[in-house]
Amino acid sequence: MADQDPAQQQQAQEPSKSALKKAEKQAKLAAAKAEKLAVRAAGAVTGQGQQKEGQKKKGGAAAGGAGGDDGKEIIGITVSKENNFSQWYHDLVIKAELVEYYSEISGFYILRPGAMHIWNTIRSWFQSRIEEMGVDETSFPMFLSSKSLEKEKDHVEGFAPELAWVTKAGDKDLEVPVAVRPTSEAVMYPYYAKWIRSHRDLPFRLNQWNSVVRWEAKQTTPFLRTREFLWQEGHTAHLTEELSSKEVLEILDLYAGVYEELLAVPVVRGKKTEAEKFAGGYWTSTCEAYIPTNGRGIQGATSHALGQNFSKMFDITVEDPVKKGEKIHVWQNSWGLSTRVIGVMVMLHGDDKGLVLPPRVSKIQAILIPVGITAKMSAEDKEKHAKKVEELRVALKSKKVRVDVDDREGYTPGYKFADWELKGVPLRLEFGPKDASNNWVTYARRDTGEKGTIPIAELETRVPELLETIQRDLYNKADESFRSHRLQLTDWAKVVPALDSRNVVLIPFCEEPACEDQIKDATRSDDHQEVGPNGEKLPSMGMKSLCIPFEQPEGLVKGETKCLNPQCGKLAKSWTMFGRSY
Amino acid sequence: MADQDPAQQQQAQEPSKSALKKAEKQAKLAAAKAEKLAVRAAGAVTGQGQQKEGQKKKGGAAAGGAGGDDGKEIIGITVSKENNFSQWYHDLVIKAELVEYYSEISGFYILRPGAMHIWNTIRSWFQSRIEEMGVDETSFPMFLSSKSLEKEKDHVEGFAPELAWVTKAGDKDLEVPVAVRPTSEAVMYPYYAKWIRSHRDLPFRLNQWNSVVRWEAKQTTPFLRTREFLWQEGHTAHLTEELSSKEVLEILDLYAGVYEELLAVPVVRGKKTEAEKFAGGYWTSTCEAYIPTNGRGIQGATSHALGQNFSKMFDITVEDPVKKGEKIHVWQNSWGLSTRVIGVMVMLHGDDKGLVLPPRVSKIQAILIPVGITAKMSAEDKEKHAKKVEELRVALKSKKVRVDVDDREGYTPGYKFADWELKGVPLRLEFGPKDASNNWVTYARRDTGEKGTIPIAELETRVPELLETIQRDLYNKADESFRSHRLQLTDWAKVVPALDSRNVVLIPFCEEPACEDQIKDATRSDDHQEVGPNGEKLPSMGMKSLCIPFEQPEGLVKGETKCLNPQCGKLAKSWTMFGRSY
Repeated sequence: MADQDPAQQQQAQEPSKSALKKAEKQAKLAAAKAEKLAVRAAGAVTGQGQQKEGQKKKGGAAAGGAGGDDGKEIIGITVSKENNFSQWYHDLVIKAELVEYYSEISGFYILRPGAMHIWNTIRSWFQSRIEEMGVDETSFPMFLSSKSLEKEKDHVEGFAPELAWVTKAGDKDLEVPVAVRPTSEAVMYPYYAKWIRSHRDLPFRLNQWNSVVRWEAKQTTPFLRTREFLWQEGHTAHLTEELSSKEVLEILDLYAGVYEELLAVPVVRGKKTEAEKFAGGYWTSTCEAYIPTNGRGIQGATSHALGQNFSKMFDITVEDPVKKGEKIHVWQNSWGLSTRVIGVMVMLHGDDKGLVLPPRVSKIQAILIPVGITAKMSAEDKEKHAKKVEELRVALKSKKVRVDVDDREGYTPGYKFADWELKGVPLRLEFGPKDASNNWVTYARRDTGEKGTIPIAELETRVPELLETIQRDLYNKADESFRSHRLQLTDWAKVVPALDSRNVVLIPFCEEPACEDQIKDATRSDDHQEVGPNGEKLPSMGMKSLCIPFEQPEGLVKGETKCLNPQCGKLAKSWTMFGRSY
Repeated sequence: MADQDPAQQQQAQEPSKSALKKAEKQAKLAAAKAEKLAVRAAGAVTGQGQQKEGQKKKGGAAAGGAGGDDGKEIIGITVSKENNFSQWYHDLVIKAELVEYYSEISGFYILRPGAMHIWNTIRSWFQSRIEEMGVDETSFPMFLSSKSLEKEKDHVEGFAPELAWVTKAGDKDLEVPVAVRPTSEAVMYPYYAKWIRSHRDLPFRLNQWNSVVRWEAKQTTPFLRTREFLWQEGHTAHLTEELSSKEVLEILDLYAGVYEELLAVPVVRGKKTEAEKFAGGYWTSTCEAYIPTNGRGIQGATSHALGQNFSKMFDITVEDPVKKGEKIHVWQNSWGLSTRVIGVMVMLHGDDKGLVLPPRVSKIQAILIPVGITAKMSAEDKEKHAKKVEELRVALKSKKVRVDVDDREGYTPGYKFADWELKGVPLRLEFGPKDASNNWVTYARRDTGEKGTIPIAELETRVPELLETIQRDLYNKADESFRSHRLQLTDWAKVVPALDSRNVVLIPFCEEPACEDQIKDATRSDDHQEVGPNGEKLPSMGMKSLCIPFEQPEGLVKGETKCLNPQCGKLAKSWTMFGRSY
């Protein structure tokens, strides 16, 4: 079982600057080791055509194509997360079968069943909660006409360069071209004007699950930046600013819940600065995550207060219930959560052996692998063992554990272990004749590599507990990492070194867009060079504001503390979190 | 309670030819009555602005806009189903708030929460069943390039005139235009060629829930024919024809289940003729429904065996597990169910008072309306009564009944009754002081108008039972209607009169496309003129084949019985169901 000594000690351990050299060396070793392992694993494929017709092969088909009739291919990730993060990520999402590149049209990706399971888990979690809040579901057309776009220029300006235009149907030119929605404000709000006729119709809340298209010119990255993506978009209207603000934060809490409770990703809740808020909106709330490997911040999801901007453009009014005869423009919100969340989770938890999935979102939570089946064993003994394995599966299934048995013939246990590690299954259960005679099952945790045994009599209680422990540990590890790399600074000279050591920073800030631009320019650096998807060195970008955290640390004296930007000189309004970011 | 005497006796009662005149007269009376009722109901709107700020108004907003601050508008449907079916349908789906026209771009519709609830109920019912079968979920891009289209000309030819072409992104022309998917064969199958590497990968089954675009030139109709619609599309690959055929029929059974078990719509299962099968496919199975009001057949959903046509075009092969070294082209299926199902249900069950929803798909199953609250009642008594109503609601909720209370102030019970009848809520529960003193709740069934009382002590068991009774009765009524209007004919002279009397027919048929064309021409008729959406008379179309039912009646002697078309003369292969159709 050569693959029991994982390369995981080389995975990103939130390196301090001093640890970087060491990490680099370890990473190289890890890469070499991983490659060796992969070749060995691929070599383990021996059986061809020995299975029954129509028997479904589990998982193996796509582990880099290994295991097919055509034999030996490299399994697993061959680039280390630490050495070339970008390449590692691109490799991983393909090899772990979360996505496939859509070679027909660049910037588009196919979401495969493993990714769809995560998305659907999030979908039903979020859907049941907004239903309880009274949000109804709707489905608006995917197209908007150029006419309705003209109504709201501010908002549209940001999206205009990315609009995909349908100009022909069959071989006929359309009289008026239509664009595929990049978001649905302009599609939906004319109807809000029609449907909202009285303050008694408020709050008016609709949500839809769909896909939107933004024809990005920038380099695309699976999940994080794609030309089409799945999301939900909620659009609501309220009588007062207070009621609308309350909902903005309720939704933000649900978004943070998706990250924290499902994906085991810690986030900081806060408000976007003016420079970073939603185009055409009033204010934007956000939850921000952190990727230790490159020290970048990443926007998790945003919930926007639109104020009355759109209701004025689209004339969405009700009669004032107090001052008869007067009109009130409704207060609107919009909020969206996209498949980007999956990318954040992959980047955070994955390691050099592959994906690491939090148990709550993993399609398979525990993979049960028969081991120690030798050629010497009698057919009868084999059958007896297989029967016991099936009993274990049924027992776990009865406790709602999403368990599967890998009984593929012609594959060594070592190959199977590597395959399921690549795919990120949280818990491996091994069961051989020795385990059987001891009345236990051997387990290995994907996140820590820890191994142990569970008495069969306790399996039904211990496995669900262990899965919850893994979920919690993943979160706690990431949370400690984020906390220790969120540096509160009052010395400008320390900012760039902090960024170069893969931290995000909390600094006193005036909140002015012009100052934010200056800060971005002043914090570019060549010191900590990142590596691009083709292995080329990239100069490090300047930092931008991630959010103004709702939880403000002590130490900022209003009317006294100054903005940390030495070129600024204005008074600081808040501790603002800055970082290099996606 | 003027609205207790419904116009429902005038609803389509599967009229025989002799009953037509009578029905017409009744329909006119019904229309007049409905209009009177509507005006009276609208007149009941008295309260304006008396409710608390932010209180959510239930339902009333959209009952033709009545109940808003701006007062009296006509509620309800003003056209009778029997007199002008097309107009009735278009009015109904809007007024019952299932859809809204998307005025920006013709042929597109907005699905509102009532429709989305039905669709989501179907979605989770179907999803859980295909998951059990081992079908995985995926999400492919919405665009396909012109290149991949060229691969499969036969199939594409049918869709080409309806493709929406994106030719520009922002202000730049795309190098290669891309089309919005009309269906995803051409999008997905290149990847099936990549992913299916061994017979052990079979069966390979993926499904996706999305929307597709077919830019129809024909008149569009909400749900039935729209330029964008929601659906699921399943695409699977199998080692043998036998295994693929088995799945085609398993899926067809699920589609029939959606109609029969959820929507209370009886269907006939069968095979499409060559002339009507899926373009590029091998054979098509279908379930066909029947609309009594105009006697038309309507295709419910189709499950296609694609044979090896696509696997040959896209080179999807595996090594033969028996004959080593030989290649097998996989056997493929595709199957889709769309939001059309909702339209069929509306047409079948609706009446002159509005929508009639089967309880299993209705967002609100029971609406609880306080009655008999007079101005004379003390505040204390009112509060006491409201508390009792709330107790009833909670009791029903605890039994998973989807119940809501209509406690809107300023609306008469009569207005509320008409409003919820329009929206199709299966069961109305009235509760007034008299009911309270009798310890019962008064009920009225939406489907039959039947009224009665239920002792409060039995409410929790009787209401769920009653809902199931309504579900069953709706189905049985429709099933009797379909059975009595499916005429088995062996006399060609009787065919057109049967169609004119709103029947579909089962006739001995040779199954030849050319003969099918002849039959279509020969069965046009001016005798039973239908009414178009603007009230204009339309000549009746010829009949086409709906399906070759799997359940074949007796009486066809192979090698002896001739095709019923007198111009044909060939031998009949089967009893085939023909009808005028959507």
